[in-house]
Amino acid sequence: MKIVEGTITLKLPEGSKEVLLKNLYLSCDPYMRLIMTKGSASDLGAFTPSSPLTGYGVSKVLESGHSDYKKDDLVWGFTKWEEYSLVSSTQILFKIEHTDVPLSYYTGILGMPGVTAYVGFFEIGSPKKGENVFISAASGAVGQLVGQFAKLTGCYVVGSAGSKEKVDLLKNKFGFDDAFNYKEEPDLDAALKRYFPEGIDIYFENVGGKTLDAVLLNMRVHGRIPVCGMISQYNLTQLDGITNLANIIFKRVRMEGFLANDFYHLYPKFLEFLLPHIREGKVVYVEDIVEGLENGPTALVGLFSGRNVGKQVLVVARE
Amino acid sequence: MKIVEGTITLKLPEGSKEVLLKNLYLSCDPYMRLIMTKGSASDLGAFTPSSPLTGYGVSKVLESGHSDYKKDDLVWGFTKWEEYSLVSSTQILFKIEHTDVPLSYYTGILGMPGVTAYVGFFEIGSPKKGENVFISAASGAVGQLVGQFAKLTGCYVVGSAGSKEKVDLLKNKFGFDDAFNYKEEPDLDAALKRYFPEGIDIYFENVGGKTLDAVLLNMRVHGRIPVCGMISQYNLTQLDGITNLANIIFKRVRMEGFLANDFYHLYPKFLEFLLPHIREGKVVYVEDIVEGLENGPTALVGLFSGRNVGKQVLVVARE
Ligand SMILES: NC(=O)c1ccc[n+]([C@@H]2O[C@H](COP(=O)([O-])OP(=O)(O)OC[C@H]3O[C@@H](n4cnc5c(N)ncnc54)[C@H](OP(=O)(O)O)[C@@H]3O)[C@@H](O)[C@H]2O)c1
Ligand SMILES: NC(=O)c1ccc[n+]([C@@H]2O[C@H](COP(=O)([O-])OP(=O)(O)OC[C@H]3O[C@@H](n4cnc5c(N)ncnc54)[C@H](OP(=O)(O)O)[C@@H]3O)[C@@H](O)[C@H]2O)c1
Repeated sequence: MKIVEGTITLKLPEGSKEVLLKNLYLSCDPYMRLIMTKGSASDLGAFTPSSPLTGYGVSKVLESGHSDYKKDDLVWGFTKWEEYSLVSSTQILFKIEHTDVPLSYYTGILGMPGVTAYVGFFEIGSPKKGENVFISAASGAVGQLVGQFAKLTGCYVVGSAGSKEKVDLLKNKFGFDDAFNYKEEPDLDAALKRYFPEGIDIYFENVGGKTLDAVLLNMRVHGRIPVCGMISQYNLTQLDGITNLANIIFKRVRMEGFLANDFYHLYPKFLEFLLPHIREGKVVYVEDIVEGLENGPTALVGLFSGRNVGKQVLVVARE
Repeated sequence: MKIVEGTITLKLPEGSKEVLLKNLYLSCDPYMRLIMTKGSASDLGAFTPSSPLTGYGVSKVLESGHSDYKKDDLVWGFTKWEEYSLVSSTQILFKIEHTDVPLSYYTGILGMPGVTAYVGFFEIGSPKKGENVFISAASGAVGQLVGQFAKLTGCYVVGSAGSKEKVDLLKNKFGFDDAFNYKEEPDLDAALKRYFPEGIDIYFENVGGKTLDAVLLNMRVHGRIPVCGMISQYNLTQLDGITNLANIIFKRVRMEGFLANDFYHLYPKFLEFLLPHIREGKVVYVEDIVEGLENGPTALVGLFSGRNVGKQVLVVARE
């Protein structure tokens, strides 16, 4: 990644049907690393070498050649990692209607990671009250929400994360029943047996690798594993081998991969569910705000060492 | 495994509620190896050391202390690897009502493996006409049926098996669209890309290991993997590592383990579906019949080198 200066005319070309955006908040998302590896995960999109990165963001409309949008509309969707962007109207996903919550939330709790947590837990996880839920990368953009959704559902919830600070957040801010620092557990299987003596009903999978392999030894009969991500593998050239998969037979476990994009039709229902909880303080959200486009690369790379505490947001401009 | 001689009084003990069986056909099933490994797959049951093996079989009732059964009833369910067995009535799963088909079928096509193929393909696989189906261990007790069910559904069906003879069976007897000998494919990924240039919608998983890892590179969006078994792993102490699991995210694949036992309530529906097809010759079944209890251990062990061609049945007595 390189930071490059350029100029853009802040005026739509004559007859253009595109939309001119001022980018406010950009979202740092793990999948962006994945699609930097040629040939991998092409379903998630691709970057064009020597063009700006593309990604989720919150933007303000400066000028619109498309009748769905007008000047000063706030929108979230796909934009580019630059101050101003000319995008096709199809790249915009939603107009932002509710501004009594922080605008940056539309990169996180009210944006793609929020939808991910919502559909992954409720639609793919099929949770029931009283079930045992384990979440990895639990303090992150997606994980912190899954844990709170699980608590709202009446589940017993344990999360793993990579630092004491994050473990404290899980227990004290997000209301998890328990949490542990996976980096300090030499034997993940033993750790899981300690927190889940009766096994795990739902494992919300964010990291893959050794964590998944240990979880497979601890699933309960008819357990579910919504497979959201496997961040521990995205930077590897030699992938970890999962050896305990046969357990999904004896335990009749369903593992199911999903992408938030397939579920945007549920966005209105999602907002209806979540906005009241946010307004009443029943669901909280921690963001890690980094200022300035020039700090984008470091913020993005930081996801893979756990530098971020909560949702990694990059501020380009505040309005 | 040891062959041991003993005596049994062919008379129910006074007041017993048990059932005295004459065993006719015994079923050699891969899971029997699994439960010989201590601590593994205890959900599947366990053997008692120095007692006869237990397993699926077809038997004739000699005497019954339970009102559900009477002398000369034919039954299938759990019995013991011996000539005569005293069993609890709860070990008997079903009374055999249809005897116009070979009795041995109740160890295979009309027994547990049949139910496995039926629920694994139709209930877990959710097949649709025109979809691409791949089956491993395709000529075996379960696989040969899955392939025929998939053809009945209007799918494109390819199977893998471990010898030329089995590949010929798949293509010429069971009506698979194509088949290959996995032992002659140095690059399974390349083989799958040859047979499925557009990818696989349903992979019926019988073997695990390298085959599964190659399949994961070739699944289509929203594909399903009913995970029936992973026979390539049952004899290993060092299990193969699966490295390509992250593909189930980008491709939104559902992998689901299941056990036939959970679905015996569907047995009447299953018979209603399958019996007419058998009678009309629209579904065929190949059995590998071994005579004599003393040949049981070799037959059972043979499953793990692919010695069996079709369903491995052990004949104890023909009536
Ligand atoms: N399926 C979808 O549609 C979808 C959508 C969004 C996100 N995702 C996936 O969801 C997961 C979480 O994404 P997010 O946006 O919420 O990110 P995040 O959790 O906010 O940030 C990534 C976190 O992953 C953890 N991590 C990094 N390397 C790790 C490793 N080697 N082992 C274990 N943990 C590691 C770090 O936390 P620690 O300090 O705790 O290690 C880091 O803070 C990712 O796998 C992502 O790809 C999927
Ligand atoms: N979930 C359930 O309820 C359930 C019920 C029944 C069976 N199963 C499972 O379904 C699978 C098939 O069972 P089945 O009864 O139909 O057995 P089968 O296919 O009739 O016999 C086993 C076959 O597996 C193949 N095999 C053995 N070792 C292998 C290896 N290392 N790699 C690849 N293939 C190997 C051999 O065929 P080749 O010559 O083709 O290699 C052998 O003939 C097994 O995994 C079994 O555990 C599950």
